[in-house]
Amino acid sequence: MNNTLDELKLAMADTNGLFNTEVFGKQNFDAIDDIYTLDAHILPPGAPMVSGRAAIKDFWAVAIRSLSATAAVLTSVDIAVEGDSIVEIGGALLTLQAEGQAAVQVEVKYVVHWREEDGRWKWHTDIWNMNG
Amino acid sequence: MNNTLDELKLAMADTNGLFNTEVFGKQNFDAIDDIYTLDAHILPPGAPMVSGRAAIKDFWAVAIRSLSATAAVLTSVDIAVEGDSIVEIGGALLTLQAEGQAAVQVEVKYVVHWREEDGRWKWHTDIWNMNG
Repeated sequence: MNNTLDELKLAMADTNGLFNTEVFGKQNFDAIDDIYTLDAHILPPGAPMVSGRAAIKDFWAVAIRSLSATAAVLTSVDIAVEGDSIVEIGGALLTLQAEGQAAVQVEVKYVVHWREEDGRWKWHTDIWNMNG
Repeated sequence: MNNTLDELKLAMADTNGLFNTEVFGKQNFDAIDDIYTLDAHILPPGAPMVSGRAAIKDFWAVAIRSLSATAAVLTSVDIAVEGDSIVEIGGALLTLQAEGQAAVQVEVKYVVHWREEDGRWKWHTDIWNMNG
């Protein structure tokens, strides 16, 4: 890992942006290949841990459709480079908008453990919860 | 960091055990000095992030008393050594028992980012949520 911190932040912003525009915005769940490592874990509130990228794709497909979620804007709050990995604390602003209804925004906070895989920085462990 | 993985696991189990026996079991909140780093962050469900050990002590004092919590048994599920730190995925079984009532058990899952401080392994970032 020979990246400067600025390069890392750009790479992270790129991955975080894909999650918003492709996964939430376009329901393009194949973009998850570029977001999560193959053996990633997610720890969603209200459900058991989900392991592996294939199962994570299924999780987000169901969650995004059932919540009528249209955006997930992620903001890094703290970034710690640890060996060949990164631990990020961040916040997410989700937009939920069922057809014909007003949009609702939900604040989420998260911790993501990042690793580099196939030349991209990806989420290896992803856990979140609600602020209120 | 010259610990073997077995030594790290023992050190982690020691810290995790303190949280159960001292903090939850005896409401000895000064034990938190040996559990969290000075500039730790916790990300509790249903509340904003809490920063710094002093504020974290206050959080746990209020939470444990208001929930009538008596135990928090922690179990590591996955441990990743990353540079001079560790990222742990784990599960917690909380026991809540108000006076004169039956005990209730609650399953929690968590991610903790560990760092060594003053010769002890401590929680630097701690986030959790409920399974159901």
